[in-house]
Amino acid sequence: MHSQLSNVRVGVLGATGTVGQRFICLLSRHPYFVIHALGASARSAGKPYAAAVSWKQPEPIPQAAADLVIRPCEPEHFKDCAIVFSGLDADVAGDIEAAFRTADLAVFSNARSYRRDPHVPLVVPLVNPKHFDIIPQQRALHTPPLSKGFIVTNANCSTTAIVVPLAALEHAFGPLESVLVTTMQAVSGAGYPGLSALDVLDNVVPYIPGEEEKMEWETLKILGGLSDPDSDGLISFDMHSSAPLRVSAACNRVPVLDGHTASLSIRFARRPPPSPQQVRDALSAYTPAVQTACCPSAPPHAITVFEQPDRPQPRLDRNLHAGAGVCVGRVRQCGVLDVKLVVLAHNVNIGAATSSIMNAEMAIVRGFVQV
Amino acid sequence: MHSQLSNVRVGVLGATGTVGQRFICLLSRHPYFVIHALGASARSAGKPYAAAVSWKQPEPIPQAAADLVIRPCEPEHFKDCAIVFSGLDADVAGDIEAAFRTADLAVFSNARSYRRDPHVPLVVPLVNPKHFDIIPQQRALHTPPLSKGFIVTNANCSTTAIVVPLAALEHAFGPLESVLVTTMQAVSGAGYPGLSALDVLDNVVPYIPGEEEKMEWETLKILGGLSDPDSDGLISFDMHSSAPLRVSAACNRVPVLDGHTASLSIRFARRPPPSPQQVRDALSAYTPAVQTACCPSAPPHAITVFEQPDRPQPRLDRNLHAGAGVCVGRVRQCGVLDVKLVVLAHNVNIGAATSSIMNAEMAIVRGFVQV
Amino acid sequence: MHSQLSNVRVGVLGATGTVGQRFICLLSRHPYFVIHALGASARSAGKPYAAAVSWKQPEPIPQAAADLVIRPCEPEHFKDCAIVFSGLDADVAGDIEAAFRTADLAVFSNARSYRRDPHVPLVVPLVNPKHFDIIPQQRALHTPPLSKGFIVTNANCSTTAIVVPLAALEHAFGPLESVLVTTMQAVSGAGYPGLSALDVLDNVVPYIPGEEEKMEWETLKILGGLSDPDSDGLISFDMHSSAPLRVSAACNRVPVLDGHTASLSIRFARRPPPSPQQVRDALSAYTPAVQTACCPSAPPHAITVFEQPDRPQPRLDRNLHAGAGVCVGRVRQCGVLDVKLVVLAHNVNIGAATSSIMNAEMAIVRGFVQV
Amino acid sequence: MHSQLSNVRVGVLGATGTVGQRFICLLSRHPYFVIHALGASARSAGKPYAAAVSWKQPEPIPQAAADLVIRPCEPEHFKDCAIVFSGLDADVAGDIEAAFRTADLAVFSNARSYRRDPHVPLVVPLVNPKHFDIIPQQRALHTPPLSKGFIVTNANCSTTAIVVPLAALEHAFGPLESVLVTTMQAVSGAGYPGLSALDVLDNVVPYIPGEEEKMEWETLKILGGLSDPDSDGLISFDMHSSAPLRVSAACNRVPVLDGHTASLSIRFARRPPPSPQQVRDALSAYTPAVQTACCPSAPPHAITVFEQPDRPQPRLDRNLHAGAGVCVGRVRQCGVLDVKLVVLAHNVNIGAATSSIMNAEMAIVRGFVQV
Repeated sequence: MHSQLSNVRVGVLGATGTVGQRFICLLSRHPYFVIHALGASARSAGKPYAAAVSWKQPEPIPQAAADLVIRPCEPEHFKDCAIVFSGLDADVAGDIEAAFRTADLAVFSNARSYRRDPHVPLVVPLVNPKHFDIIPQQRALHTPPLSKGFIVTNANCSTTAIVVPLAALEHAFGPLESVLVTTMQAVSGAGYPGLSALDVLDNVVPYIPGEEEKMEWETLKILGGLSDPDSDGLISFDMHSSAPLRVSAACNRVPVLDGHTASLSIRFARRPPPSPQQVRDALSAYTPAVQTACCPSAPPHAITVFEQPDRPQPRLDRNLHAGAGVCVGRVRQCGVLDVKLVVLAHNVNIGAATSSIMNAEMAIVRGFVQV
Repeated sequence: MHSQLSNVRVGVLGATGTVGQRFICLLSRHPYFVIHALGASARSAGKPYAAAVSWKQPEPIPQAAADLVIRPCEPEHFKDCAIVFSGLDADVAGDIEAAFRTADLAVFSNARSYRRDPHVPLVVPLVNPKHFDIIPQQRALHTPPLSKGFIVTNANCSTTAIVVPLAALEHAFGPLESVLVTTMQAVSGAGYPGLSALDVLDNVVPYIPGEEEKMEWETLKILGGLSDPDSDGLISFDMHSSAPLRVSAACNRVPVLDGHTASLSIRFARRPPPSPQQVRDALSAYTPAVQTACCPSAPPHAITVFEQPDRPQPRLDRNLHAGAGVCVGRVRQCGVLDVKLVVLAHNVNIGAATSSIMNAEMAIVRGFVQV
Repeated sequence: MHSQLSNVRVGVLGATGTVGQRFICLLSRHPYFVIHALGASARSAGKPYAAAVSWKQPEPIPQAAADLVIRPCEPEHFKDCAIVFSGLDADVAGDIEAAFRTADLAVFSNARSYRRDPHVPLVVPLVNPKHFDIIPQQRALHTPPLSKGFIVTNANCSTTAIVVPLAALEHAFGPLESVLVTTMQAVSGAGYPGLSALDVLDNVVPYIPGEEEKMEWETLKILGGLSDPDSDGLISFDMHSSAPLRVSAACNRVPVLDGHTASLSIRFARRPPPSPQQVRDALSAYTPAVQTACCPSAPPHAITVFEQPDRPQPRLDRNLHAGAGVCVGRVRQCGVLDVKLVVLAHNVNIGAATSSIMNAEMAIVRGFVQV
Repeated sequence: MHSQLSNVRVGVLGATGTVGQRFICLLSRHPYFVIHALGASARSAGKPYAAAVSWKQPEPIPQAAADLVIRPCEPEHFKDCAIVFSGLDADVAGDIEAAFRTADLAVFSNARSYRRDPHVPLVVPLVNPKHFDIIPQQRALHTPPLSKGFIVTNANCSTTAIVVPLAALEHAFGPLESVLVTTMQAVSGAGYPGLSALDVLDNVVPYIPGEEEKMEWETLKILGGLSDPDSDGLISFDMHSSAPLRVSAACNRVPVLDGHTASLSIRFARRPPPSPQQVRDALSAYTPAVQTACCPSAPPHAITVFEQPDRPQPRLDRNLHAGAGVCVGRVRQCGVLDVKLVVLAHNVNIGAATSSIMNAEMAIVRGFVQV
């Protein structure tokens, strides 16, 4: 199916920001998405993109975007886009994305505004595109009801990194019982300007506001299922309630540019638990629906398992498969829970822009976006 | 008692290395230890210290050391030292330290060679100077028996950081049941030249050879007690066997110069467990014997508890109290175990040289060294 | 004279900023200056200092400041201060410092607002306290004329680093003809938050807005003299006009926390020029007036000359003499001009707060401040 | 011509080192060079490449190399290679490369061993492939004379960065008179392990052994021409003697992974000198022979001139055109010489492996290698 697609017009909101810039790099190389409209704040609107942006990517501004005139972030300027990607900051994303949905546009958002909305799917494309099934309900409950519009969010970048291997393990071995995670997160996760150099050079900051709560809560929504319809015919996210999962996160910022590293300890419900080798095998074998559906941004391997004792490392491995997959290493027994391992994911690719793009690809496959 | 001490002659083995240099800085400011002899490899022996060392400290070479002629690391050159500190590399420390003990010298070692020896105390001065009680047995079992000589080791720098708060918690609340720890360790912990800049700039290395095993094993030896005498009248380290403690460590290297940060989750044996506030209070109140004995290198507070949500941080807090104490912050509930917290300790001070010096101070107080 | 001084009350404007924090650290250890009043923006005024500041120094907030209630930056709140130090940002410093001067207060400023004022001395304490001689004229020309008030500024941090050795060379060998300087400047020079971590990790930024012009212009004002009185009896800064000096600067930001490094090439007017060894000797011998006047913040050596080929280095040498002096190394012949050398200075100490404090000490010695 | 080439077998000496790894990455994507043989030390010989190498590139080991069995660095094992690239360390390169030449092999070397040899061309491919003309003489003077073998070296990585714009300026405006350069060099320039992390984190090291001499000398050889034949019919490198050029370098190591930045001040022989705009135009217009010859590794622009005031920056610009060109920015007047500018080049690409590969491509075009 993808092979027949071409010239799917997309818009990017928050195009001048860190995530917006990455969207533009990725979309400029996409086989069928075409950058059609760029939106940014009133300060930038009306200017050519190249003149408005403080470009921070390690490649030149793609030609597909350089000369586009930035539009205000208002739906009427994006009417001819089949898909709108949002890299907006959280402080403005809520209202703007709502307005776009109301205008019957399909919005794929990186912002946190609607992640906790009971009708908005929180989708990590390598894990739970099944949650798109709530889109009809989201449309129906909207006033007025929508025919095409919706909002899909992707997860926080640190959540994304860990739920991929956790999903693979649940797929292979049944429910998990407990997950303890300590992250070492890259500065790009905080956007631009984000952290002061004075705070992070030769330093670790053992705190990221709101991050631990997000990881603990989002993991349950993503790994959980959809409930059966209730008496009103409504479905909901079950928050992994059939087999309660405890997640405890400790989040740290380290002097790394890109790539979140996480150290995990996991306890399985199943006794005895799988061995480290069984865990490695299950992670390597994990094949999510975006791969079988041949989404073009899906990585060839969702999870790459490293055998070397000192890998994955952010500088060496974050760009594997264009940062679209997740790296896992050091799978070994844990003396307190069952298994320990290290996860690495590129926070701006699979952790942000690549996830939205893959979600959009999958939404087309699933028929939720007409192109 | 300390007030009467003066001019206690000390020697430093491995004086040109990273730990040796820190010994010299600290000893040059010590109220009663006097640097009397410096030992290094044959390549350096015979040269003035200032000419032989590749000095890497952020202060000039202390006058007390600059002109001392380096001696070979042989006991006859250190006969007039009441105490010998060893900053030797592990590959040579074993034989040299044994020879010094055989020559009836008191050796305080940073090397790992004798940490697992059943008659050598592994002492973190803020935790278990009680273990000096095995010194008479160590002397008696030596062939020939010794009157003054012994070896005391201090712990691995990352172990040192975590056992101080763990000891405080056991002191206040009884045995711990489980400890999960993820470290973010400074590059100075690997010595000089240690890590290549290419390995650590913009990177995290999720592996330090042997480190996790050391943390897991050493913690048990240090927090455990001494057994009652067996039928031969011998005592031994009980490895915390009366209340088995499970420790699981994940060790990472980060681009930080000095100061190991660790994220801990802890489960107490006692149910219900203490609250985060009770934990904070107990940590703040912890007063180890080195403080009551007025050892001059003991910090005014063994554990400094931070209330700010983003502290401690290595760059800002590692030098608090000259790096002789331990910093703790972010004490909060853990959704999987009981309590989470962050620990920071200066790996070359309390994690290495300061520990040896405090151990020596305490050994004098306890009468194991005659001065 | 200094020995009789005690309890000289001082105020600090901009007390919560990067330079303000360093002022407080330094003043808390000063033999006779006593922190009496702290000023900051309206947002902070009324709060205890410890509650208002985002403290970023690697030592705890000094007791002398922690509980002081922050005052608005208005002269009436600083009436009982003999000296007011200003660490204000340039965007507000102009008006506030003018108001303080009008209120007959002695202001020592780090801001750039008055550096180009023809009646305000731009003083690097290790170089040109002679320029204080313009203070009577500054007072006389004020409307209304002042009896005690004035503004003295210190130089930009990068200028300060280079003018000290340049002054020493002119003192020994007569006028310089040309100076080419390339700087590698620390991030703390940009204040807090200053640079984004994303801009400086694994990077060099070859541009600092306005910095090159400042270095080129300020150097002439500082190294120049005071003119003879004109027909109106007025004196002025001669901008080194008697022997024109050409300065060309290239300024770069590097991932260093503190300490500006500069690579200089110098051409002397005198032919033949001095040899590298003569240059080294002259730099070592340089003894500015703040030393002979025994100002307590003056370093024991104004310029420390390193013989090792790879020094000075910011991490190892920036804190020498509490960062109050300047380090020079690698003095060697230049194939294009005459001599090349490397300069290092702590940009927040001698480059900012320490300079102001030393200027105030010297102004007392010279009788421009009554205490 | 290149279009007809295919399957040119090449070998790589020093294949496990930093430069060797980059050779392998680049050659694995080359349109006609095929990695045929890999050589490394006796310790690695006999092992599959993937098992022997400590791989440090931010991409996986190319399939073309992973399973090749490493050969000893002896000519008989490389007999079937049309070209041999050498990434050997200087301490062994001299003898090995000589042996390969004696075996009539074409060697393109990154080592410094033969850079000063009066018959070996020191070629920066964007500057002086004309110097290949000395190859016949090199062959003829060899004992025994060679028919195919020779050694071509490329320049030190920091030299390479600066000679490209200097050549462009001489091409446009005639001889230069003086060049003052201060470098800020990446740690990868020192190989692996190279610099200790302890030496470079939060630091600048203002010294790189031998580097300044290399830059000053190599620049003259590269920018100079070939003499007319002497009475014996021999030609030689004229070291720019027809218009003496003075070069003065100051070399610094900074905490950057890849990409050498240099700050240059230049004086032209021609008076008046060109304006900054004329300099920018000339740099942009520079089209070296490797471009007109359509060498596949030649960048589309030899020199990219930036207009933004804060560019080029190593992290953002080092990978432009796969690191095969040179970036220049901040072209402006110099108050001491004529013009100042900033140069950036990727030290492991155009500064090392890419240069050798382009040299080989050009040697084929020029007929010095038969394929």
